[in-house]
Amino acid sequence: MGGDHAPDMVIDGLEIAAERHPHARFLLVGDEPSLSALLSKRRRARAACTIRHAAQKISSDMKPTAALRTRDSSMRMAIDAVASGEAAGVVSAGNTGALLALAKIVLKSLPGIDRPAMAAIGPSARGDVVMLDLGANVQCDVRNLVEFAVMGDVFARCVLGLTAPTIGLLNVGAEELKGDDTVRKAAEILRASHIGPQFHGFVEGHDIAAGTTDVIVTDGFTGNVALKTAEGALKLIGGLLRQVFNNGILSKIAYLLAKPGLDRLREWLDPRRYNGAVMVGLNGVVVKSHGGTDAQGFAHAIDVAMDMVVHRFNDHIREDLARIGLDKRAVREKNGSAAKLAPA
Amino acid sequence: MGGDHAPDMVIDGLEIAAERHPHARFLLVGDEPSLSALLSKRRRARAACTIRHAAQKISSDMKPTAALRTRDSSMRMAIDAVASGEAAGVVSAGNTGALLALAKIVLKSLPGIDRPAMAAIGPSARGDVVMLDLGANVQCDVRNLVEFAVMGDVFARCVLGLTAPTIGLLNVGAEELKGDDTVRKAAEILRASHIGPQFHGFVEGHDIAAGTTDVIVTDGFTGNVALKTAEGALKLIGGLLRQVFNNGILSKIAYLLAKPGLDRLREWLDPRRYNGAVMVGLNGVVVKSHGGTDAQGFAHAIDVAMDMVVHRFNDHIREDLARIGLDKRAVREKNGSAAKLAPA
Repeated sequence: MGGDHAPDMVIDGLEIAAERHPHARFLLVGDEPSLSALLSKRRRARAACTIRHAAQKISSDMKPTAALRTRDSSMRMAIDAVASGEAAGVVSAGNTGALLALAKIVLKSLPGIDRPAMAAIGPSARGDVVMLDLGANVQCDVRNLVEFAVMGDVFARCVLGLTAPTIGLLNVGAEELKGDDTVRKAAEILRASHIGPQFHGFVEGHDIAAGTTDVIVTDGFTGNVALKTAEGALKLIGGLLRQVFNNGILSKIAYLLAKPGLDRLREWLDPRRYNGAVMVGLNGVVVKSHGGTDAQGFAHAIDVAMDMVVHRFNDHIREDLARIGLDKRAVREKNGSAAKLAPA
Repeated sequence: MGGDHAPDMVIDGLEIAAERHPHARFLLVGDEPSLSALLSKRRRARAACTIRHAAQKISSDMKPTAALRTRDSSMRMAIDAVASGEAAGVVSAGNTGALLALAKIVLKSLPGIDRPAMAAIGPSARGDVVMLDLGANVQCDVRNLVEFAVMGDVFARCVLGLTAPTIGLLNVGAEELKGDDTVRKAAEILRASHIGPQFHGFVEGHDIAAGTTDVIVTDGFTGNVALKTAEGALKLIGGLLRQVFNNGILSKIAYLLAKPGLDRLREWLDPRRYNGAVMVGLNGVVVKSHGGTDAQGFAHAIDVAMDMVVHRFNDHIREDLARIGLDKRAVREKNGSAAKLAPA
């Protein structure tokens, strides 16, 4: 029931997803009368869906604390279905803060994971790039960054299909001495771990779009700012290009001549292709669709959830956490004077 | 003597600057024989310059500690001339880390400034934007962010010529409750200060390119990553557009037709127009030119230094610091449990 165009957009997205994933079953949680009416016009979605009525919904401006008190909301009931094992994952286009809070409280972290993170995929000059954390944790310590690297590695294997993704730790310079104690100590641990051969070391802001590594690891404050900064820069250029091609008859002819290439560029950067931020590190798969997306974008968010379920994302994380042997006490000692990102 | 094309590029830049600023005098510090030879071919620069011989130069890969020990380097002697009052400011295209370290040690912070910061100007949809800190301080506390806002305000008035620049504090969301204690407390102090009416509140990554505010304040880690991320995104799009227009004869015709508009766009985004990062908060004006720039870019860095000197940048900072009444003890108490960006 969440997002700017729900529930219509969700049902249309399900119709696409039901065709792409013929063996999948969907538990559709929300207002039964309106969902039934919409499903009656969508053959494939109807065949693949079970409706569960929810009396309430979480509005887009509801505070997480209020969302936590609303036990019969569609979002809460969908997450409850994951907690009970009835569903393997949840996809929502609703209120991000509420989804994060509910998912953390109801599903809880995977054993050994201190803090779940938000991960997403974006375009780069050398193929798709996974970045995390995108804002679930504004303050991160050494242990968190190391766990993000482990989860980012598994995510890139499950969703991008890479066998040995390269991993970069975002910093203000590539040299070993750059940055603060937190990133330097996280780098030290990663270098010595089982993913050491995949660990590229420090990367800088421009390495994100350059695709220097397949995975970019950072704290949630920096990751959130970097993602939105890149989106802002792309939007600025898009607007300026529209002005260039709208400036007189010659420019309009130029646009028509260059249209095939420009359309490919637009398609390649299409945010719908990258829709679906994932909350990693929880007991269950949780995918957050952009609230303003359309059916194609929502279907893509379902694809991401399916990839994570089918490729047993959480099982791999459990195995890899055991391999990296991240003993709580050892990491705490390593934190030492790392003040910047130490938890309060 | 610093930068990829020094000293030729510096002399060519001086020739342009000498025409733009006919009353300015330049103290040119470096290898006397090569500087004399170059100046002999540049009438205006020659008339405006005095050469001071320096036996050494700081190489681009020299560590700041080594730079500090080299007392007869051109960079050190140029900064010394600012310290002695002989020069009002210094412009260098050399090693950034060395320049930062030397400027801090030799010139020292302005009274009342805890940490100098790196500031620069960039393009946005609504005009030029000042951003700081861009990497001088990877860890910042409440006091630092407030001082950056004061210095960013003065910088925008002196260099962009604005009378009441708007100021935004970079965060993961626009709501008052977003972020960590450090940004929330800095916002609280700014709201109550003399620049309160100019303080917009929190801004997000996409607000940088949107030009939501004239000044963007952030810690050096986030600022450095955001700047490089935006540069990386623009570079990616530039490369993709070149591919679009290089793809067959129709695309090439399209390029020729759209060329005037595309050229304007390129000019508008030209990094040379934005060359000259400024180290603010020191006893003296210090401008860092990009090492790879050309004479036009270097002349622009000199323009920035001239603006700061002519508009008495440091005098305004002194006055504004007095007005904001940032008492050290009060801010320290306000820091409270702000762990993230607390200094070690």
